[in-house]
Amino acid sequence: MQGIVPHPELHAPVLSILALELERVEQCFSEQLNLDLPPVQKLCRYIERYRGKMLRPTMTILCGLAASANVIAEVEPNQPELTPTSPTDLGAMHRCIGHSHRVVAAVCEMVHMATLVHDDVLDEADMRRRGATVNYLHGNEAAVLLGDYLISNSFHLCSTLGRPELNERIGAVTNSMCAGELLQLHHRGDWSIDIPTYMEIINRKTASLIGLCCELGAYECGAEQQLAEAMGQYGRKLGMAFQIQDDLLDLIGVEEEVGKSLGKDLEKTKLTLPIILYFQEATANERENMLHLLSDNISEDSRQLVRATLLNSAAVEHAQQEANDLVESARVELKKIHPSPARQLLEDLAVAVVARRY
Amino acid sequence: MQGIVPHPELHAPVLSILALELERVEQCFSEQLNLDLPPVQKLCRYIERYRGKMLRPTMTILCGLAASANVIAEVEPNQPELTPTSPTDLGAMHRCIGHSHRVVAAVCEMVHMATLVHDDVLDEADMRRRGATVNYLHGNEAAVLLGDYLISNSFHLCSTLGRPELNERIGAVTNSMCAGELLQLHHRGDWSIDIPTYMEIINRKTASLIGLCCELGAYECGAEQQLAEAMGQYGRKLGMAFQIQDDLLDLIGVEEEVGKSLGKDLEKTKLTLPIILYFQEATANERENMLHLLSDNISEDSRQLVRATLLNSAAVEHAQQEANDLVESARVELKKIHPSPARQLLEDLAVAVVARRY
Repeated sequence: MQGIVPHPELHAPVLSILALELERVEQCFSEQLNLDLPPVQKLCRYIERYRGKMLRPTMTILCGLAASANVIAEVEPNQPELTPTSPTDLGAMHRCIGHSHRVVAAVCEMVHMATLVHDDVLDEADMRRRGATVNYLHGNEAAVLLGDYLISNSFHLCSTLGRPELNERIGAVTNSMCAGELLQLHHRGDWSIDIPTYMEIINRKTASLIGLCCELGAYECGAEQQLAEAMGQYGRKLGMAFQIQDDLLDLIGVEEEVGKSLGKDLEKTKLTLPIILYFQEATANERENMLHLLSDNISEDSRQLVRATLLNSAAVEHAQQEANDLVESARVELKKIHPSPARQLLEDLAVAVVARRY
Repeated sequence: MQGIVPHPELHAPVLSILALELERVEQCFSEQLNLDLPPVQKLCRYIERYRGKMLRPTMTILCGLAASANVIAEVEPNQPELTPTSPTDLGAMHRCIGHSHRVVAAVCEMVHMATLVHDDVLDEADMRRRGATVNYLHGNEAAVLLGDYLISNSFHLCSTLGRPELNERIGAVTNSMCAGELLQLHHRGDWSIDIPTYMEIINRKTASLIGLCCELGAYECGAEQQLAEAMGQYGRKLGMAFQIQDDLLDLIGVEEEVGKSLGKDLEKTKLTLPIILYFQEATANERENMLHLLSDNISEDSRQLVRATLLNSAAVEHAQQEANDLVESARVELKKIHPSPARQLLEDLAVAVVARRY
């Protein structure tokens, strides 16, 4: 995430804790996949390059740090309010991050990685994080099996914590993610899909996991249920905004900047927010022209035309506004915790998620 | 499994308990997948027809019943030895089967169902249990996602028992299953694969789950560790024999009898035991002829020639012997439990697994 953080120098103290913890999360991730079967090891090593923003572990750690401010304040009620620049307070906050945070973070990243590997099969994508996808290099079969292996390992890793309620929470979210993907598949080529259905899909397939990361991150630091749930809401809203931005980039992004195959949603006739909004606001004529562009096997020319049409309309701006509103609403949830350097970073990250170009 | 049980009238008392319990397992299975999203529900309802032999739930329940004989004998040491015909003893044994048996059985069946759905994608199979596969009817994408949904739900269902050690055991086995499938994929087209590698593949991909069903079935009835492990060994060996028989049927079975697409292993250049044994026993000339038959996109004619060549050699018989030896060894494990109607059925089922023609 560090690449999209605005004013990294301001956030340096939190970012250095985050970097240390993410390293530990990666170690936990690698140890879980360390199996003595060379062909399996080779594939697992390959997907290490998929690790990009590490949004989910970042959220787990940062929400833990941020929520710990409240926990510390309860223990020491006379302590002055934590300020964004106090390194001493940060030390106390860092001590709240434990083994279970790292495991939860690694589990969620592994679940996410599994969905990336399977998504690339479904999308027939050749490129991810500026490199070839597993399906492109090793075929669909290896990619399906590797995805399964990652899902299985994520649950196994989670169960090592010996707390079935965590397995149940994570299982419920992965159920919801798969159901969201199935719902999305069902609505492919459905030009009449409405905003609530789109929102349900992205809530399930993307936002539910990010929300869980935030909630569990806070919970593992001893946050009260109400506070943990607020953090969960922050994550869920940020996750929705993140997916809207992803869908926007797929339509109007620049492949060299984004680093993965674009135009996949159109190719797979998945309707996303900008086009749904365009249809809502279009004249009968504009609607017909757009349907014509989308209706057959979409060519690069048609894609460029769709892009230009959307950019010339209010639809892109409205979709961005929707994402911005979600980010604002996410930031409101953060007001429920004490100000701290970690909370400040969470606020800035929420803004960065919708400002990103990759 | 009832269709392959020899002398069903002899086993009627146990079979009626089994039928009742399998119904409860099915209920548990369906309740877990009962989600209020029509497109998801539709797919889940479709795969109910995949339920065939229900080998894994059967093993979980029967091993529970069989192991309970020892547990009952420990509690009531003066009780006369349980005999295969005593309905009173069966009643006491049945009372040892509880909610956790049904959940474990449903979890394992769900894991198995997920592998069937994904296997059909990998094998590009059109037919399963005399019906169209999910990938054939709804495309590869739906099949990949449905498999994911089933895996996720199996873990979620398991975690509702609130016992992390069960999640960990099942997670370890599903890790091993996926690794076995990846190993098998790695060895596709490898004409020099040896018997230990083949055995490792089938142990991981098939036998590990059946072994776990048997072990947990016994364990959930209060069996001591040593006894539960013996039951696990019984299941593992039976599972190996089961897979060898499956591979034999794929090569020399009759599609109308087996009820699914055959010849898939050859089509996918997966070397299985009969061919590995054939190569071991063949002259240089025979070896070269067989390699020639296997080497290019295998036609129906080549498949029939491979079939005839194998049937004319000792390879099929040797593979069957290997399966029979495993069954014998599995039956030896059963000697560690008290004789009972359930144990008798487990013995007969082991024999039936290698005698089946479907």
